[in-house]
Amino acid sequence: MDKLDAVLARIDANADAALERLFAVLRIRSISTDPAFAADCKACADWHAADLASIGFEASARPTAGHPIVVAHDRSATGPSALFYGHYDVQPVDPLDLWDHDPFEPKIETRPDGSKVIRARGAADDKGQLMTFVEACRAWKEVAGALPVPITILLEGEEESGGANLPGFLEANAAELKADIGLICDTNMWDAATPAITTMLRGLVGEEIIVTAADRDLHSGFYGSAATNPNHVVARILADLRDADGRVTLPGFYDGVPELDPALKKQWDALPFDPKHFLGAVGLSVPAGEKGRSVLEMTWSRPTCEVNGMGGGYQGDGFKTVIPSKASAKISFRLVFDQDPHKVREAFRAFVRARIPADCKVEFLEHGAGRAIRFPIEDPAFQKARQALTDEWGREAFFIGGGGSIPVTHMLKTSLGMDVILAGFGLEDDRIHSPNEKYDLQSFRKGMRSWARILAALAS
Amino acid sequence: MDKLDAVLARIDANADAALERLFAVLRIRSISTDPAFAADCKACADWHAADLASIGFEASARPTAGHPIVVAHDRSATGPSALFYGHYDVQPVDPLDLWDHDPFEPKIETRPDGSKVIRARGAADDKGQLMTFVEACRAWKEVAGALPVPITILLEGEEESGGANLPGFLEANAAELKADIGLICDTNMWDAATPAITTMLRGLVGEEIIVTAADRDLHSGFYGSAATNPNHVVARILADLRDADGRVTLPGFYDGVPELDPALKKQWDALPFDPKHFLGAVGLSVPAGEKGRSVLEMTWSRPTCEVNGMGGGYQGDGFKTVIPSKASAKISFRLVFDQDPHKVREAFRAFVRARIPADCKVEFLEHGAGRAIRFPIEDPAFQKARQALTDEWGREAFFIGGGGSIPVTHMLKTSLGMDVILAGFGLEDDRIHSPNEKYDLQSFRKGMRSWARILAALAS
Repeated sequence: MDKLDAVLARIDANADAALERLFAVLRIRSISTDPAFAADCKACADWHAADLASIGFEASARPTAGHPIVVAHDRSATGPSALFYGHYDVQPVDPLDLWDHDPFEPKIETRPDGSKVIRARGAADDKGQLMTFVEACRAWKEVAGALPVPITILLEGEEESGGANLPGFLEANAAELKADIGLICDTNMWDAATPAITTMLRGLVGEEIIVTAADRDLHSGFYGSAATNPNHVVARILADLRDADGRVTLPGFYDGVPELDPALKKQWDALPFDPKHFLGAVGLSVPAGEKGRSVLEMTWSRPTCEVNGMGGGYQGDGFKTVIPSKASAKISFRLVFDQDPHKVREAFRAFVRARIPADCKVEFLEHGAGRAIRFPIEDPAFQKARQALTDEWGREAFFIGGGGSIPVTHMLKTSLGMDVILAGFGLEDDRIHSPNEKYDLQSFRKGMRSWARILAALAS
Repeated sequence: MDKLDAVLARIDANADAALERLFAVLRIRSISTDPAFAADCKACADWHAADLASIGFEASARPTAGHPIVVAHDRSATGPSALFYGHYDVQPVDPLDLWDHDPFEPKIETRPDGSKVIRARGAADDKGQLMTFVEACRAWKEVAGALPVPITILLEGEEESGGANLPGFLEANAAELKADIGLICDTNMWDAATPAITTMLRGLVGEEIIVTAADRDLHSGFYGSAATNPNHVVARILADLRDADGRVTLPGFYDGVPELDPALKKQWDALPFDPKHFLGAVGLSVPAGEKGRSVLEMTWSRPTCEVNGMGGGYQGDGFKTVIPSKASAKISFRLVFDQDPHKVREAFRAFVRARIPADCKVEFLEHGAGRAIRFPIEDPAFQKARQALTDEWGREAFFIGGGGSIPVTHMLKTSLGMDVILAGFGLEDDRIHSPNEKYDLQSFRKGMRSWARILAALAS
């Protein structure tokens, strides 16, 4: 039995212990966007630092202006080095009443077909995924006494809340962190049977607007019509952002957005993808976006504008005839190709300001910005990783586009000059960012085995 | 000293005891729209029934399908009978952090000019106002041994939450409740020195829409653009409701809305009203409503559409890239002249349905409906009440229009065939429905005296 086979056997033999470790980290309420959970975020970082140290990494949870960043090194191997990135923070859990159980008390559920899922906030995004890599390292260390390649692990605690402190941290520690290739486990497979490496990712601009009209809430009977209602102002702005054909109306928004390369478009059109199934799985049937675009284009290669949150006035039970003082909205733009996040942000702010009445105010809050990114799929490291995934899953791994944004990917490219292999084992029904998030037990088990293989392949 | 003078002297002498009684009722958390406060509403009704019984009324808190209705009779006098209506329920108190103190722990504040205000939720709307009438009755009973005219007092507990049970109650008890004139103390003075009787009131239609798209919250990176975002659907509906000139766009909305009678318009234009002061007092400067209409027209004689609440997606601190499953809005229409509330509701629902994508659902919740109303200012009772107010305040009382809606007024007119004298002592800076609601101590004191005079005048 060669070393890799022994490592894979070890992973299988110790699968229950690995699951117990994952449950321990899933119990930590590391919601980064809510200041109430700052201590939990720190506890989660400390947990990971201690766990990685127990494997033999030189590990610490390093303070930032926000939540700590965990850095761990094991550079005893020779050969091309790798930097693995994951994030230990999770999304908020509201609305809590839609969860079937405590989001932070993980449990195994058996589905009607006998397959099992791990259910908890962060099961897939990203605790379950990042632990597949950590467990692969653990197995290599235990079986072979060393990792196949030199590895640095970096775990962020603010991926779900704007990631304000990561860019400065990467810059300040560039020499320590730079490696020959980046590895990230925060993406999906093509489907439950088919692995994939995501080689195109959209960028993101997150913005929040808070519109203030009167200096207090008003009675709509006394002031209605005469006093500006900020709900109307915000609704008008949100409605104006997209035209009747689903196109974003910001001037210059589509600058730097070419039509898709015909060869790639042809490949995508041939993918076994059924838009009716994709939408039907979440109770929808009619694609809502740009007219004349396929659903894969909409979600992989076209820029979008989505209102992620809006609110103003009385939202409780019953009715209150109020004109609120303030109304607000959170808006995200997904960017593709060469769209410039800063130009998009400025165009958005000018667009909003043009719609604010003279006696109202608008405040802007920035929630992250990152460019779109593409990686060279012809590069040997990508080919080796693809083969390793194909070997593990018994199906050829796809190179695919991705709709989400992983801002760190762009930073690794621009700040540290690294390409990144995005190999993840999530599935589209994982309900990440939603109530009842889950991660397939098979994703966890075969994910650990996949990384064990990829590490061996990178050393070859 | 005639009886009225003795009653007025008694009110002045007992002003502190009256204030203590008002404080007792202000401490009761009778928020009718929130089921969590149902027991408090019942306690408030019981408090009033006991208080009215202590004056000598035959009083009880009568159960309804919702909160109780208090009915009290003292019909020992002869002459034209009166039915006084007030409401003991109050608006919710959110956002609580904008209150300077506990909304249910009333206190007296002294302003820089030495004048005093009563600060608490309900201080003006309507507990302070309704107690001016109760205290006037108490003084008459104590001084003269009897009321000047036969009086029935009816106190509702659902005025701030749709008033679903009042129409049936009025109908079922019409013979018991009918009187020659209605009296209500739930309106404002013209200004702090000038009393007024409101003789035109707008009607109201309250509607809530809940739009559901996907059957769960989605990640905007994976589903953005392709999946319908209900925030966009609701924002589009809200934006479409008013055109660029501030007119409501519902088909048929302005049916039954004539231009104001030129003579009345001339009188209104001559009123000492400064729109800049009206808006400036709440931090605004630009009238937002229909182009070409004065602010008094906008708020007294023109129909309006206001979004009183809207919400969807993530509204907490930070950012969450979610496409929510649901988004919602609460919308009120103020009606004038002969607008039909049911036609407006149907037009609104058709308007909304036309904007719901094929794979989304919309649910409608009804929050009350009432027609606009006008009373005959030439009627002797109105002239007597006006003179009584003029006598108390030393300034001629105005007949004015009103922007708010008091649905019971219409019910008294249509169900019981009664005209209603709306004489109130609120002021535009009372912040009703807002944090830090107040009622001027002078309004309370001279309000009691005003009602004592009106009762004497109605008997003359």
